[in-house]
Amino acid sequence: MPPPEPVQAPVPSPPSGQGEGLYGLTSSLVRAVAAALDAGDDGRVRDLIAPLHQADLADLIERFKPDERQQLIAAAGAMFTGEVLAELEHDVRDDVIERLDTGEVAAAISELDTDDAVAVIEDLDAPQQQEILQAIPDEERVALEEGLTYPENSAGRLMQREVLSLPSFWTVGQTIEFMREATDLPEEFYKIFVVDPRHTPIGTVRLNRLLRTRRPVRLQDIMLTDLKIIPAATDQEEVAYVFEQYDLISAPVVTASGRLIGVVTVDDVVDVIHEEAEEDLMRLHGVAEPDIYRAALQTAWGRFTWLLVNLGTAIIASIVIYQFDGTIDQMVALAVLMPIVASMGGNAGTQTMTVAVRAIATKDLIQSNVLRVLGKEFIVGGINGVVFAVLAGAAAGLWYQNLPLGLVIGGAMIINMLVAGLFGLAIPVTLWRLKIDPATAAGVLLTTVTDVIGFLAFLGLAGLFLL
Amino acid sequence: MPPPEPVQAPVPSPPSGQGEGLYGLTSSLVRAVAAALDAGDDGRVRDLIAPLHQADLADLIERFKPDERQQLIAAAGAMFTGEVLAELEHDVRDDVIERLDTGEVAAAISELDTDDAVAVIEDLDAPQQQEILQAIPDEERVALEEGLTYPENSAGRLMQREVLSLPSFWTVGQTIEFMREATDLPEEFYKIFVVDPRHTPIGTVRLNRLLRTRRPVRLQDIMLTDLKIIPAATDQEEVAYVFEQYDLISAPVVTASGRLIGVVTVDDVVDVIHEEAEEDLMRLHGVAEPDIYRAALQTAWGRFTWLLVNLGTAIIASIVIYQFDGTIDQMVALAVLMPIVASMGGNAGTQTMTVAVRAIATKDLIQSNVLRVLGKEFIVGGINGVVFAVLAGAAAGLWYQNLPLGLVIGGAMIINMLVAGLFGLAIPVTLWRLKIDPATAAGVLLTTVTDVIGFLAFLGLAGLFLL
Repeated sequence: MPPPEPVQAPVPSPPSGQGEGLYGLTSSLVRAVAAALDAGDDGRVRDLIAPLHQADLADLIERFKPDERQQLIAAAGAMFTGEVLAELEHDVRDDVIERLDTGEVAAAISELDTDDAVAVIEDLDAPQQQEILQAIPDEERVALEEGLTYPENSAGRLMQREVLSLPSFWTVGQTIEFMREATDLPEEFYKIFVVDPRHTPIGTVRLNRLLRTRRPVRLQDIMLTDLKIIPAATDQEEVAYVFEQYDLISAPVVTASGRLIGVVTVDDVVDVIHEEAEEDLMRLHGVAEPDIYRAALQTAWGRFTWLLVNLGTAIIASIVIYQFDGTIDQMVALAVLMPIVASMGGNAGTQTMTVAVRAIATKDLIQSNVLRVLGKEFIVGGINGVVFAVLAGAAAGLWYQNLPLGLVIGGAMIINMLVAGLFGLAIPVTLWRLKIDPATAAGVLLTTVTDVIGFLAFLGLAGLFLL
Repeated sequence: MPPPEPVQAPVPSPPSGQGEGLYGLTSSLVRAVAAALDAGDDGRVRDLIAPLHQADLADLIERFKPDERQQLIAAAGAMFTGEVLAELEHDVRDDVIERLDTGEVAAAISELDTDDAVAVIEDLDAPQQQEILQAIPDEERVALEEGLTYPENSAGRLMQREVLSLPSFWTVGQTIEFMREATDLPEEFYKIFVVDPRHTPIGTVRLNRLLRTRRPVRLQDIMLTDLKIIPAATDQEEVAYVFEQYDLISAPVVTASGRLIGVVTVDDVVDVIHEEAEEDLMRLHGVAEPDIYRAALQTAWGRFTWLLVNLGTAIIASIVIYQFDGTIDQMVALAVLMPIVASMGGNAGTQTMTVAVRAIATKDLIQSNVLRVLGKEFIVGGINGVVFAVLAGAAAGLWYQNLPLGLVIGGAMIINMLVAGLFGLAIPVTLWRLKIDPATAAGVLLTTVTDVIGFLAFLGLAGLFLL
């Protein structure tokens, strides 16, 4: 099935419906397709989806329930290309692949560039993967199997193997002739890689430079040598950093011995940047991955672990309170006020932690400035600690007409805000030093600390000074 | 000051130091530069920074204290280019610009493409902006002033005005001749835009296609017409969505009447994607923006508002508890256990909210599926509610050897988890419908709800059934 050439009006129609943008699906289209599917009118479905870009068709498929998806894909026929399959969100793709014949899936996958094909294949479970690989033509299968030998989330998985590499002594004229005659070039590329006899990349020639140079000039005389070479085993997070830092469009990928084997392009990296930032956000909040298209039971299960850990830490906080039940029994106001100190510490710590997690990801926080930033967070915690000690102390003192109670909550607030600033930084930094993703468990650890210290400081000071 | 040609070994040296990657600064380099600055050895500083990419030099400047930065920039001399200035993080750039002469800043800015120059200028306060604009040569100043007329964070601000656009009847040969002779072309570009007589973009020709086509062929016969045209007023978040969705490398920007005025390239969009994902994360946690390079007092102030709001909501929760102080007085175990229900609700709600905020940003959550997702979240809340009701109920019942107490905490847990799921989705969706950034206040609103309902359900049920 060849990808259909999308036909679209060059000037976008005005966005329809609230919160909808320039491009992408509109709610009215989704409703129209739903109605046509309900009526079993496949012709109408095809007319409606014909103008859609493949990425939008993938989004449309995601919007429906599993059985409707099957019906939609059947109606789409040849419009359901490998590209559409590759654009589907992970959970939905699993579901769709299960409902298709192995032959259909294999045909769709073989249309794709190696990077996209590997991305589809790698998510499948092993027997399914084998079954589909067997149905793919030999040459492509070998390329895919080789792609799968690289570690998950590595540059080797991300790269496409289709790359134009030429020796440095070739002239511009030779290069242009070669490009005119070659039939297996990538459809879209922005640079030619220049390699030495060992096939190690030594430079790049931008196509605009090639176009603007006279034919007898050699590639070595117009190539740029400021290469950012990426070993195939490099983690995708590091790849994304290199692209962002140096504003790259593409970068050569090499074996351990420096041989050019592929190219990573910015469109794949855009997806990685998106994923990695999203991953930090999700992990901080105990969601394994975006689960909007997952069934309720799986969603509940995916969120269970974090909630269980949170139950554990909440019980730890309760045990701390339990140590002071005699104190609370004598003065019930303490029970009323104690969540304030814990909550403020949790929030202040989370602010610090959020900044730290992102600063580690962007390499703004490195070994050489950790101590300075720690000192700063201590001061920030101190400033806001004093400010909120006064505010909370005044509020509590006035509420209960009890100055010592105000002083106790104020003192506890200062202690907890200082602790929050220190641990908000120290927890992600320690995880990072231990080579654990700083976002993963930082949130639970931190709120455990701020809850425990919050209750301990407040109830402890109250026990000492109020009774 | 011409940008220095970076000289770098084509094969990267192995990363040194823990947590450091392939590229970017190393802690040992930072320490060496610090030592050279301390010793006042400008020659050594220059030798150390000479191999650095401009983005890395910017990172290096960020690592130092304000007065050291000034010394480093003085030592860098011509290596401190406009590009370096543009790469500096906002807070640091403000500080650096204040310490430089207006003439130096103006010279650095005039080297830049319009998009980068506008990005530097737009952050300055009005009088400083005017002063610097006056020092910039006329032609560039006009371009910059025009760039500044577009709304902040719009495609008009993001675009570069340097764009190659040609009429559709030109031949490949004419185009190549033109490109060879033109002197003011952008340094790097990937496509030629084809325009109609009203200067409206009607197609693009990829450079590789141009290279591989015979000279007499007209552009209209090889152009792709599947354009994603972006009006200049489009918000950058929408621009980022369009690039991600359609894997674009560049896109034409037009006036309201459809006239081509510039081009947005993917390297600028990568920064936007990064910023927007980071913004969601920061806003959810009440941090205005990454403040790692900001002084302690400003950092404390930047985080103050959210903490103040949180104090308000914590006090509301306390007022709820206060209504039950008689109940707690009779059974102090309630004070020990009550934070568990509130904390679990807060976490479950935050999980839902995190997924919802990202799904809105990626357009996976739209008008037509809100109700279905709401239904699902209700079921997820119900499932985890029952599971954790059993766990927490058993724990509390065994701890206090009190079955009714276990039943009460279980009942409260189910109620709060259901509420958490509903509000975790409803709050960001409502904010989005009201055209407010869903991330902004969602966290505070949500934890207020889950705290209030958590305490109310637990203490209320206890009052009804236990006393």
